[in-house]
Amino acid sequence: MNPDRLFPPEPQLRALARAIFDSAADAPILSPHGHTDPRWFAEDAAFPDPTQLFVIPDHYVFRMLHSQGVPLESLGIAPQDGGPAETDLRKIWQTFADHYHLFRGTPSRLWLDHAFATVFGIEEDFGPATAMAFYDRIAEALTTPAFRPRALYKRFDIEALATTEGALDDLRWHKMIRDSGWDGRVITTYRPDAVTDPDTPDFRKNVESFCAMAGTDAGSFARYLDAHRARRAYFRDIGGATATDHGHPTATTRNLSPAATEALYQKVLSGRADAAEREDFRGQMLTEMAKLSLEDGMVMQIHPGSFRNHSTAIFDRFGRDKGFDIPTRTDYVRDLRPLLDAIGHERDLRIILFTLDETAYARELAPLAGVYPCLRLGPAWWFHDSFEGMWRYRQMTTETAGFYNTTGFNDDTRAYLSIPARHDVARRVDAAYLATLVGTGRLSETDAFDLMQDLTHRLARQAYRL
Amino acid sequence: MNPDRLFPPEPQLRALARAIFDSAADAPILSPHGHTDPRWFAEDAAFPDPTQLFVIPDHYVFRMLHSQGVPLESLGIAPQDGGPAETDLRKIWQTFADHYHLFRGTPSRLWLDHAFATVFGIEEDFGPATAMAFYDRIAEALTTPAFRPRALYKRFDIEALATTEGALDDLRWHKMIRDSGWDGRVITTYRPDAVTDPDTPDFRKNVESFCAMAGTDAGSFARYLDAHRARRAYFRDIGGATATDHGHPTATTRNLSPAATEALYQKVLSGRADAAEREDFRGQMLTEMAKLSLEDGMVMQIHPGSFRNHSTAIFDRFGRDKGFDIPTRTDYVRDLRPLLDAIGHERDLRIILFTLDETAYARELAPLAGVYPCLRLGPAWWFHDSFEGMWRYRQMTTETAGFYNTTGFNDDTRAYLSIPARHDVARRVDAAYLATLVGTGRLSETDAFDLMQDLTHRLARQAYRL
Amino acid sequence: MNPDRLFPPEPQLRALARAIFDSAADAPILSPHGHTDPRWFAEDAAFPDPTQLFVIPDHYVFRMLHSQGVPLESLGIAPQDGGPAETDLRKIWQTFADHYHLFRGTPSRLWLDHAFATVFGIEEDFGPATAMAFYDRIAEALTTPAFRPRALYKRFDIEALATTEGALDDLRWHKMIRDSGWDGRVITTYRPDAVTDPDTPDFRKNVESFCAMAGTDAGSFARYLDAHRARRAYFRDIGGATATDHGHPTATTRNLSPAATEALYQKVLSGRADAAEREDFRGQMLTEMAKLSLEDGMVMQIHPGSFRNHSTAIFDRFGRDKGFDIPTRTDYVRDLRPLLDAIGHERDLRIILFTLDETAYARELAPLAGVYPCLRLGPAWWFHDSFEGMWRYRQMTTETAGFYNTTGFNDDTRAYLSIPARHDVARRVDAAYLATLVGTGRLSETDAFDLMQDLTHRLARQAYRL
Repeated sequence: MNPDRLFPPEPQLRALARAIFDSAADAPILSPHGHTDPRWFAEDAAFPDPTQLFVIPDHYVFRMLHSQGVPLESLGIAPQDGGPAETDLRKIWQTFADHYHLFRGTPSRLWLDHAFATVFGIEEDFGPATAMAFYDRIAEALTTPAFRPRALYKRFDIEALATTEGALDDLRWHKMIRDSGWDGRVITTYRPDAVTDPDTPDFRKNVESFCAMAGTDAGSFARYLDAHRARRAYFRDIGGATATDHGHPTATTRNLSPAATEALYQKVLSGRADAAEREDFRGQMLTEMAKLSLEDGMVMQIHPGSFRNHSTAIFDRFGRDKGFDIPTRTDYVRDLRPLLDAIGHERDLRIILFTLDETAYARELAPLAGVYPCLRLGPAWWFHDSFEGMWRYRQMTTETAGFYNTTGFNDDTRAYLSIPARHDVARRVDAAYLATLVGTGRLSETDAFDLMQDLTHRLARQAYRL
Repeated sequence: MNPDRLFPPEPQLRALARAIFDSAADAPILSPHGHTDPRWFAEDAAFPDPTQLFVIPDHYVFRMLHSQGVPLESLGIAPQDGGPAETDLRKIWQTFADHYHLFRGTPSRLWLDHAFATVFGIEEDFGPATAMAFYDRIAEALTTPAFRPRALYKRFDIEALATTEGALDDLRWHKMIRDSGWDGRVITTYRPDAVTDPDTPDFRKNVESFCAMAGTDAGSFARYLDAHRARRAYFRDIGGATATDHGHPTATTRNLSPAATEALYQKVLSGRADAAEREDFRGQMLTEMAKLSLEDGMVMQIHPGSFRNHSTAIFDRFGRDKGFDIPTRTDYVRDLRPLLDAIGHERDLRIILFTLDETAYARELAPLAGVYPCLRLGPAWWFHDSFEGMWRYRQMTTETAGFYNTTGFNDDTRAYLSIPARHDVARRVDAAYLATLVGTGRLSETDAFDLMQDLTHRLARQAYRL
Repeated sequence: MNPDRLFPPEPQLRALARAIFDSAADAPILSPHGHTDPRWFAEDAAFPDPTQLFVIPDHYVFRMLHSQGVPLESLGIAPQDGGPAETDLRKIWQTFADHYHLFRGTPSRLWLDHAFATVFGIEEDFGPATAMAFYDRIAEALTTPAFRPRALYKRFDIEALATTEGALDDLRWHKMIRDSGWDGRVITTYRPDAVTDPDTPDFRKNVESFCAMAGTDAGSFARYLDAHRARRAYFRDIGGATATDHGHPTATTRNLSPAATEALYQKVLSGRADAAEREDFRGQMLTEMAKLSLEDGMVMQIHPGSFRNHSTAIFDRFGRDKGFDIPTRTDYVRDLRPLLDAIGHERDLRIILFTLDETAYARELAPLAGVYPCLRLGPAWWFHDSFEGMWRYRQMTTETAGFYNTTGFNDDTRAYLSIPARHDVARRVDAAYLATLVGTGRLSETDAFDLMQDLTHRLARQAYRL
């Protein structure tokens, strides 16, 4: 690993970037948005093997191999109809290694190399020839206590780690973590899409179960909303949640009257709502969730703009989350206005906006976050969680929204072992960016060092009320 | 102030950028588009105090503070209903200083620091601890003759400064300037939105007053157009105007028949026009204004794409221009076509296009300006009037439109004391950009020095016919 | 010519970029997509004169002059109505030279300077004063055997050069090249727009001639499709084609039933189809062409998003290809889905996507090409065939799609003498980009040198099955 990776090439800037980066070396990792499995921390069992850790669950990895003609089955991803898939974990690992050159220049490569080098201490280059040696080294390490989830949590110096659970989740693993007396802080996040998005399969059943879990029924919108209140409280009490998360196809919000909302609710429950009405309901629910956030103090995250399961063939054969979620153009100015008109000036409300459409940074998101007190910009997300993605994010948001309307880094990952790598990248980019501002007379050195503390931990702690 | 601010960090490029920048050190400031108050130059009275100069009127400043929860009232911005607002100017100034860290990395910070340092000669850093000392220094300076508007005009080495007045303005201050015999060149710009945009409050009344001012009546479109002819002539004769300016929500233009235009005019006047018809009228009026420009030689500026007064609550409580104008996606290719088809090949027509949607630079604006003889690209505007904004502008327009289809810098500001700072930033970015082209073999040094003269003063003078 | 042009200014990066660039110095030119005239290679006659070579056919050149008020007629472009146009070639050349400063900072300038210096060995600067000397030097060179098309092909070290012919072309020049026994590889490309786009003038007549050429008739969609099969085979057999090319206004695709397709075909042939149906037909034909590609192995290229002949006045007076094709926003996510759902997972299908809308790179194109096995990204196209355009292309596609879902450079030109210059620019940008990745720890040096071979020739050979 190049110790000066991601820093500016010009020697003076590089030295300054290194100094800024080093000044935050002691900062703990805050991971307020992610998708690790709470069961890991509840049971603290050994991870099974390298392939199930690094290949099978990582959509960045298998989508790239698929794009070059490697069948998903050969990577151990089983069709839903029970058709055959490769089960030889070493063979899958070798296939992955044989195609490792595909990742040249990608963040996946940076994360994987970083994990191999720093988590497992392997100094060789990963590739076809070294694949089996890597497999053996990693497999052996995984059997040792130092590589159990809780030990890694400590080793990674994590201060808080948020997982994400659906509103129907019983939070058994979070309860188990809490009951275990372990001093790590693994908290949940309230993700109600399955009961707010009428396009979810079994939507009505979901809503009925959801209301039942909350001790009420789905008969009226008021009771349905009470169920949210109850479940949100449960997520806070049992799972330590401080935030909610909403993955919608668009940023549409609505501000309907109570009567119209009730009618719409009944219609979507009945299954007779058309596409526009289902979109209305999703939009209305963002506004309702914002209002509940104002009641209970939970931070609201909106992740819009992904066209989920773009390939019908892949979705039918393998199901969701197979690398076929594709970003789309997203409008924030018109779409968020109903919500903002309803409660956008409440100073206790906190909404964190994400985007997969970078054209919105300078045109819409920075101008909106730069004036509405409830809005903050989440970090560069998903495909943009990368050197260039983060650099563009800072370039296109800072001048209009400043640094203080942003929220620090999210790793947003289920790839637990990549968490240090991802935060390392984010910190290096921020250090490089701050050094560049100093080097071009746009920031004082004192301010840069102070901002580095903000960007690495203070802003995340404040934004997520951790 | 870092004397090499905004120059490239690499030492050779930096030295070249400095040399290019220095070569234009004697160039006067041309400010062909802006929003200073002509009354200042007419009366040449002292500015009242630091807070009313730097805080209360600067939407960049108060929007940022508002975004972090500082109420507008506490910044001295009074609600329209007469509700209370802070009136203690020193207290407001202190609030501003207490939040000055919010501006780290923003152009506002660069402009303010530059004004404090170069206009007032204060060498300390502005912040909570120094706020009152700054207030005293600035307040005292403002009482002296050297800080009167006309003296500053000379000190800033301004060659021409355009203000912007609505078509209903009587230009009394411009008349007073002209009559005073002062040798400064403060000219007006014809901004007819209040009589061309049917969404303006009191639109019909505006049109009737407007026609009356021009000695005609609003009875027919022909007479309404004659009123424009007369008012444009008045703006040229009394206010020295060389340009018109049009702030529209979109870039829509229309090329309707005279009969259809007459019918549309009557309908919008009647107040019965729907949203599409009101948009048609705005679009038709851009084409009509272009035709009048061809008659009278006035340069036409189009500033499209701002969603004005995005927050209903703020608009209702405080009125317009409170920092809630948010950029939107803007289409130029389809929207400008009717106008361009009507008169786009007239070589004497000059239309300067601006955008808040940077995605249009490379895709639409540079290709259009790179072929239509009437089109020129205005500089990076508003939120993009910044280092990164200008850099992207050059990167995304130069290769397709060249430098000569651009128009030099506009400061577009009502913050008079920031004018030197803004031009300083623009010149530095241009010098840095030219040096980068030379350093990467894309431009000869001779051409770079020649272009620096173009970009600092020649292009603005030509584009605005000054 | 600066030998380090387009390399990063920082000395270490610059040295590395130079080394990477030099490592591919021996790589031949592959030009798999372009618009040179096959007649040149068939007849191998001398080019007539500098003006007809460099000015009259180059829309980059005449659009820029036109944008600054130079009438097309004065550049030798004759109106279609037989109106006068300048015919004095030296006078046109002088006009071009008089406006050469307009090209400062543009790729046209780089290409022209490169051609003057390296193809003709002229060391002076081109401009008003040297115009006639250049004319004489070039005119004289063109009379010599070394400047004949085939000699230049060898001198330029071209391995394969694709031209583009319409589906109605008889390929006589390609036949003549083949029959001549010359060992250059000049191949054609199948471009069926005139028989797939109902907005083409004389569409029905085109389709009927097309079917007749293929020995069938236009009576049914099946027979029309058979005609495509036959003509594609003819293009492969006689013209050596390995690819098809499709220039559509949008990326719309459709996946209609056979019955619906037949009905649509009859309707568009009848001339009664409305705009939406004509768009449906274009979209359906992309899917049909993809299916034929699967049958016959031809690589499919889609070039969407140009608003052709934007100016009605210019189109009416001078016809098409006069510099008035303007890019528009293009959607790939929704528009390509019907085609991708139909056959997007066929591993033997190869579709190369281009764009004039750079906002699609990071948001749509890289995510799509990074997962669908049939998709590859063509290089930065047209207005983006430039230093900044290529740089943004790499920055916005690499992290998500990697390098191996891209296809190497296309020069896409009819300006034969600029081909070495254009490939030189592309290689320098790639070398600079790879060096930057190495210098910032995102790529190993070994990988960078290997990738340079991929980017200069391997990927193009693979992508186009050359």
